Amino acid sequence: MADSKPLRTLDGDPVAVEALLRDVFGIVVDEAIRKGTNASEKVCEWKEPEELKQLLDLELQSQGESRERILERCRAVIHYSVKTGHPRFFNQLFSGLDPHALAGRIITESLNTSQYTYEIAPVFVLMEEEVLKKLRALVGWNTGDGVFCPGGSISNMYAINLARFQRYPDCKQRGLRALPPLALFTSKEVGKIFSTHSSFFSRGKMIPEDLERQISLAEAEGSVPFLVSATSGTTVLGAFDPLDAIADVCQRHGLWLHVDAAWGGSVLLSRTHRHLLDGIQRADSVAWNPHKLLAAGLQCSALLLRDTSNLLKRCHGSQASYLFQQDKFYNVALDTGDKVVQCGRRVDCLKLWLMWKAQGGQGLEWRIDQAFALTRYLVEEIKKREGFELVMEPEFVNVCFWFVPPSLRGKKESPDYSQRLSQVAPVLKERMVKKGTMMIGYQPHGTRANFFRMVVANPILVQADIDFLLGELERLGQDL
Amino acid sequence: MADSKPLRTLDGDPVAVEALLRDVFGIVVDEAIRKGTNASEKVCEWKEPEELKQLLDLELQSQGESRERILERCRAVIHYSVKTGHPRFFNQLFSGLDPHALAGRIITESLNTSQYTYEIAPVFVLMEEEVLKKLRALVGWNTGDGVFCPGGSISNMYAINLARFQRYPDCKQRGLRALPPLALFTSKEVGKIFSTHSSFFSRGKMIPEDLERQISLAEAEGSVPFLVSATSGTTVLGAFDPLDAIADVCQRHGLWLHVDAAWGGSVLLSRTHRHLLDGIQRADSVAWNPHKLLAAGLQCSALLLRDTSNLLKRCHGSQASYLFQQDKFYNVALDTGDKVVQCGRRVDCLKLWLMWKAQGGQGLEWRIDQAFALTRYLVEEIKKREGFELVMEPEFVNVCFWFVPPSLRGKKESPDYSQRLSQVAPVLKERMVKKGTMMIGYQPHGTRANFFRMVVANPILVQADIDFLLGELERLGQDL
Repeated sequence: MADSKPLRTLDGDPVAVEALLRDVFGIVVDEAIRKGTNASEKVCEWKEPEELKQLLDLELQSQGESRERILERCRAVIHYSVKTGHPRFFNQLFSGLDPHALAGRIITESLNTSQYTYEIAPVFVLMEEEVLKKLRALVGWNTGDGVFCPGGSISNMYAINLARFQRYPDCKQRGLRALPPLALFTSKEVGKIFSTHSSFFSRGKMIPEDLERQISLAEAEGSVPFLVSATSGTTVLGAFDPLDAIADVCQRHGLWLHVDAAWGGSVLLSRTHRHLLDGIQRADSVAWNPHKLLAAGLQCSALLLRDTSNLLKRCHGSQASYLFQQDKFYNVALDTGDKVVQCGRRVDCLKLWLMWKAQGGQGLEWRIDQAFALTRYLVEEIKKREGFELVMEPEFVNVCFWFVPPSLRGKKESPDYSQRLSQVAPVLKERMVKKGTMMIGYQPHGTRANFFRMVVANPILVQADIDFLLGELERLGQDL
Repeated sequence: MADSKPLRTLDGDPVAVEALLRDVFGIVVDEAIRKGTNASEKVCEWKEPEELKQLLDLELQSQGESRERILERCRAVIHYSVKTGHPRFFNQLFSGLDPHALAGRIITESLNTSQYTYEIAPVFVLMEEEVLKKLRALVGWNTGDGVFCPGGSISNMYAINLARFQRYPDCKQRGLRALPPLALFTSKEVGKIFSTHSSFFSRGKMIPEDLERQISLAEAEGSVPFLVSATSGTTVLGAFDPLDAIADVCQRHGLWLHVDAAWGGSVLLSRTHRHLLDGIQRADSVAWNPHKLLAAGLQCSALLLRDTSNLLKRCHGSQASYLFQQDKFYNVALDTGDKVVQCGRRVDCLKLWLMWKAQGGQGLEWRIDQAFALTRYLVEEIKKREGFELVMEPEFVNVCFWFVPPSLRGKKESPDYSQRLSQVAPVLKERMVKKGTMMIGYQPHGTRANFFRMVVANPILVQADIDFLLGELERLGQDL
């Protein structure tokens, strides 16, 4: 059969495979690592969608392509992509290129296994357990359970499943229609979870007294409250809900307390700043994404549970003996397949484990503290400079501020001020992206006009990068 | 601040970063690629959990570790992991190490971006669109929609969401309790989706006449049928449901037809074998996992839709302007964030795209055809050899068979035959894993005793690997 093989395939030719991968790795080092983290290179080489389509020649054909052409393609893909490890990439709740985490990711990809059984993932089943144990210890739990999920939204969804299942263990047999109407209570601005009853907020934080009122209201309307989802580190403002007071409310009403600490969870590593999450040990579940502030790489999202009754497997298990055999020669309690609604599940623990081994808890703590210190520097600079205005004093590494261009300074009282200010951020964003010098996000918020949200997360950031950010906004906006 | 930095951090030292990654890459090449795909090396170096824990020294400490120690750790992680690209790894519905797909995965990891906006993933937004278009074309659709999901279970969940939303566009406002009881119909053995009404089956296939009867029954009980999930390639038997006949039923009853082709979808690439999925173009949605038979690497799971009415965004969108701003300087219809319930979403398209560019559709087709041809060879060998018995004639690349050890041959009529046969596969599995020579899965099925399920998927397989599999089972089981 070998004769009918297409020319391009490398199947069964380890020398050619190795040579190809060495060349690709060289391109990755040049383009993504060396240039991609160099402040004097562009964060992105912006192209309009139609032009980029032409440049990339995306169409998939029947014929394979030469080795040289494939290597050119690898170079182009990296060249036209945004460099999220770049010291001027401030656009998202993640940034930075940790070399040990990347090493862990490359190994993960080369092994390409699924996390569901000890049989095919012996190292990673044990490693996941150990990493989850460490994260739980930082929350304040000596025992418990957990699993890595494909992102915070799925972690939050699982928390809802678990809270409901704990209260109604027969809900899967009876169906949701057999249950009374359920009510959950959550913050706004927490990614993509849909709120049913949003409490009122002050500075983006849940107000416990109001939460209590909302719970009573829901009960009076005939609903059964079952879960409160508090937030440690909101997406825009970086606000931390008062967990202790919320836990008191949950305790009084017998509600499951979930803490969405996807963004703020990593602060638990800092002895100086972990007080922001005081009370988190009283939660029933915590979502924490080390792919955000710890720069472990997408995706690395842990759902942590205080539960020791095997709730995850009881809730999500399918009892499918054709998937997870019970008569194996090792302890099948190690198999994690029935903890999740997924079947195949990526290995997301190695990158975090390897980075932690290399940096130590101390090294990671230093990074968190450093991010807070640079945030403080940014805030002081904003206060000093004309044309910059804080939306509010930040408590985390999100710094929300307006750049007020020369033509709008001192015009706060004019009736179209807010509407004109709203147009500033989109224009500056377009200019910075097309110039390629930096990327920073903006958004409106409630009645507030579009403002910038600066995120201080990349471990390679220094004060000069902060100075550049502010100076570049001034340069880009001087004619507005 | 720089003085307080822990010693081990490489932050801001590109030369050290590069050196570390080059060393790690060298280890990956040695251990995972060279040894990991060499038939004379072990598929896995089995250790009992407690011993492995000791060997790996998993605990996370406060102090960071030296470069040398980290490199040793990388080597150990790979050494004790299962080599899923090994030519004797037959354990799962994925196997093989495609070098171009791996190249795509390494680039993906080095860029570490999220798929949600054109702004931070310009290349991958366009690329995902192109890859989905190609997959849809193979299904038989010139238009449509789709998205890559974290696995087939999530793709299937989305199909359920969409079918329900299409029928009840106000279901998110009204809540599920306001809807009539809904009924969906699905196959058994399709991963982890929970069936509500399972139809009767013959050879693992859905029987359309029975499906029709079940639908009427559900209606008579006061339920509203809304979705049928047919399967193209079941997990154990590799069975293909008769899609055309099922589509007729769906059409008569106005039901959404979802096809779970997670495993079998890749057969659409083969002009010789794609008839197994005849009728798939009549589906409303299709789940197809190129990380399985195409060896693109976990995770690569596409949900494909015939819909052109933006149903995905209407159903899953959160209208959160603080996440996906509407006043950007480019066409925000390109942003995919509101297609999914996730917020951050991994880039899963590059590995498939790069492999396709390199192999061409023809190269991929050759692999599928080759897998079918080797399956045929295996089946003929099983028929020839004493002690091997097919569970049924396969139609796909799953070959289910019993190895009947010498002591059980000719004893089919004895009352404890089935019970004794059930114990054979677990014993052989333990022996092969501990010896490290190969890995193949087993499971019971209905009333059938444990049997092996051989999966012919790895593109580097040749007849000698098949011969080895059968010979090794004979060697391992000769004393039973």
